[in-house]
Amino acid sequence: MEIQLRELMERVRERAPLVHHLTNYVTVNDCANMTLALGASPVMADDAAEAGDMVALADALVLNIGTLNHRTIDSMLLAGARANEKDIPVILDPVGCGATPLRTAAAEKIIRNVKISVVRGNISEVSCLAGLEGRAKGVDASAKDAGNDFCAVAKAAAEKLSCIAAVTGVTDHISDGTRAVVVSNGCAAMSKITGTGCMCSSAIGAFCGASPKDIFAAAAAAVMCMGLCGETAWEAAKDEGLGHFHMALFDAAGKMNGDILEKGAKWHDA
Amino acid sequence: MEIQLRELMERVRERAPLVHHLTNYVTVNDCANMTLALGASPVMADDAAEAGDMVALADALVLNIGTLNHRTIDSMLLAGARANEKDIPVILDPVGCGATPLRTAAAEKIIRNVKISVVRGNISEVSCLAGLEGRAKGVDASAKDAGNDFCAVAKAAAEKLSCIAAVTGVTDHISDGTRAVVVSNGCAAMSKITGTGCMCSSAIGAFCGASPKDIFAAAAAAVMCMGLCGETAWEAAKDEGLGHFHMALFDAAGKMNGDILEKGAKWHDA
Amino acid sequence: MEIQLRELMERVRERAPLVHHLTNYVTVNDCANMTLALGASPVMADDAAEAGDMVALADALVLNIGTLNHRTIDSMLLAGARANEKDIPVILDPVGCGATPLRTAAAEKIIRNVKISVVRGNISEVSCLAGLEGRAKGVDASAKDAGNDFCAVAKAAAEKLSCIAAVTGVTDHISDGTRAVVVSNGCAAMSKITGTGCMCSSAIGAFCGASPKDIFAAAAAAVMCMGLCGETAWEAAKDEGLGHFHMALFDAAGKMNGDILEKGAKWHDA
Repeated sequence: MEIQLRELMERVRERAPLVHHLTNYVTVNDCANMTLALGASPVMADDAAEAGDMVALADALVLNIGTLNHRTIDSMLLAGARANEKDIPVILDPVGCGATPLRTAAAEKIIRNVKISVVRGNISEVSCLAGLEGRAKGVDASAKDAGNDFCAVAKAAAEKLSCIAAVTGVTDHISDGTRAVVVSNGCAAMSKITGTGCMCSSAIGAFCGASPKDIFAAAAAAVMCMGLCGETAWEAAKDEGLGHFHMALFDAAGKMNGDILEKGAKWHDA
Repeated sequence: MEIQLRELMERVRERAPLVHHLTNYVTVNDCANMTLALGASPVMADDAAEAGDMVALADALVLNIGTLNHRTIDSMLLAGARANEKDIPVILDPVGCGATPLRTAAAEKIIRNVKISVVRGNISEVSCLAGLEGRAKGVDASAKDAGNDFCAVAKAAAEKLSCIAAVTGVTDHISDGTRAVVVSNGCAAMSKITGTGCMCSSAIGAFCGASPKDIFAAAAAAVMCMGLCGETAWEAAKDEGLGHFHMALFDAAGKMNGDILEKGAKWHDA
Repeated sequence: MEIQLRELMERVRERAPLVHHLTNYVTVNDCANMTLALGASPVMADDAAEAGDMVALADALVLNIGTLNHRTIDSMLLAGARANEKDIPVILDPVGCGATPLRTAAAEKIIRNVKISVVRGNISEVSCLAGLEGRAKGVDASAKDAGNDFCAVAKAAAEKLSCIAAVTGVTDHISDGTRAVVVSNGCAAMSKITGTGCMCSSAIGAFCGASPKDIFAAAAAAVMCMGLCGETAWEAAKDEGLGHFHMALFDAAGKMNGDILEKGAKWHDA
């Protein structure tokens, strides 16, 4: 398929979409800074009494269940409903889906009640949410999924959930249920710090908020962009280590542009 | 007017005021680290059952509504009441005031029930809180306010709210309703990471906690200090980018002293 | 006593224990990244409806009361009970114990209802929890405790609380009530950023999760490891300052191995 990487990236900086997040408190600062560095504008507000009002101002909504609780699950449902009314993209990051009954039930409740544009998770999380085989150990992809066919999972999940599914890992697979693309950007260090998955979901929010009519391509471009930031950051920080790598991710994101993304993206049709 | 920048800065390190925060979970780590780097001591405790007790130990209180919820709004009111009884400075950061009814109502409720020493926000937030014209897009100053007279807003807000008003942006304007100072420290990168506004409010808490009898000057000095940290950090990190800039802010704050602040501050009477 | 530092460290990377945290929102990102950098796997989930289920997957549990509230206190008690049933190590970080009645009562309630493996705190916090003399100013060790006999406090607290007590400060003292070791790793900069204490508790969780049959040695090794990361980080970042030091902590942790720990640890029997 064709993906207009240059245009998709440049549109993020030109339109500076407001991306509303209901997300976890572990990586929220990273999500806000990634959103900003790419040229979009983040907002985080999780009280049920205002989550809908904030959606009314937003161009995209990211729901991340990393540190969900009963109060914020309700807020996510309200925010999601409002986003659907307004017809803006909703990105779901089902962190740890499959690890506990609460988490699985919450993700399923969201997917039943809210029309999701993109689900992004590791293979365990996406498999669980789509009712395919899979179990999560904590929030990491479980070892037994290592032999899975990522592409088949992405396709099946996209079809089952009627949305774009982005299964990220050593390689990333994005599918609309029919077509799929495989992305090989990224580096091993991305799994050695917390938040690279969450930041990827925020990046998808930024790209989809800027290009709401082209969700599949926007989600794929965001995944490539995040992976490329990781590669660039590791190249710059590998002598120093994980802490500097973490910071270098934002250096790379702040410098990202259409040209860099187009040249650096490594992907092919599945 | 005269501002004893050297003394105000040195007093922060000498007295190491305890600055209690009820603040958002997006930038709270940055707020704690900025407070520490400047020589003060941060504490964050938001349960209504202890917010007042923590105020009893504190030298200043920062109320930041960035991720407010019904539980923490109550805690802010309780903490504010206790701070007023004890007569320690209260700094209000009305993040996103004007963006949603909950946010606007909460900020107004705080200002009605708590005697505030300093309000710090962007022009949209401060205008909204003071009942002047202004609408916020998310938590950023809205574009239509770009043509506003920042100094007039700071003065009118200070008069209306009977406190010091610090309107921060490309230039910063601090007023007590009669006099005003304009600060031109800072750099564009400060708006490309999250938390520089929140950290500025924490710095105001540190400076006011150390010099509670000189709130106007302390608030102005804190704004200059934060802006100067931004300039210094950008100078050091501009080749690397936004991630390194973020970290370099704390490098600069940790090295800040009376001499550096006095030499680097750029301000004049309005 | 003998401490197999090399084996204890290598076991963290080999076994990659899952360390469940109920912790504060100020330093949670640092705790997650420290856990990951050392080779363990962090998870944070604080809703009472899933805290126990997450413990069922975990190898260790860290309870940190830094930003406790009524909801999370209940979750901590539930998670602690489940950890005891499952017989995995529970690490308690009684942040600010003694500063407010809520905080003291919560820490005491946890210690009464949950069998704790290791308590880690500054001398004020540990003294307060053990009913020894001590008062906390905010979350820092109060000045009046500077003349205390850290070793005596660690021993008395360990005996009183029937667990390992780790009293950290300029030097660190770890005791099981009978024996004690003194650790002199670390550097002054560790008290100039927030989170080094919390990260030390997470490191203890990682080491104890990997070596649950050797809790005393594992806790001591974790304290040495954290101190050594601090020294290494300061050596690398002292010209730049506190922000770079913060990041360099994770660089050092990511590179830590049995060899480095064995060579760099500075400790002796008390």
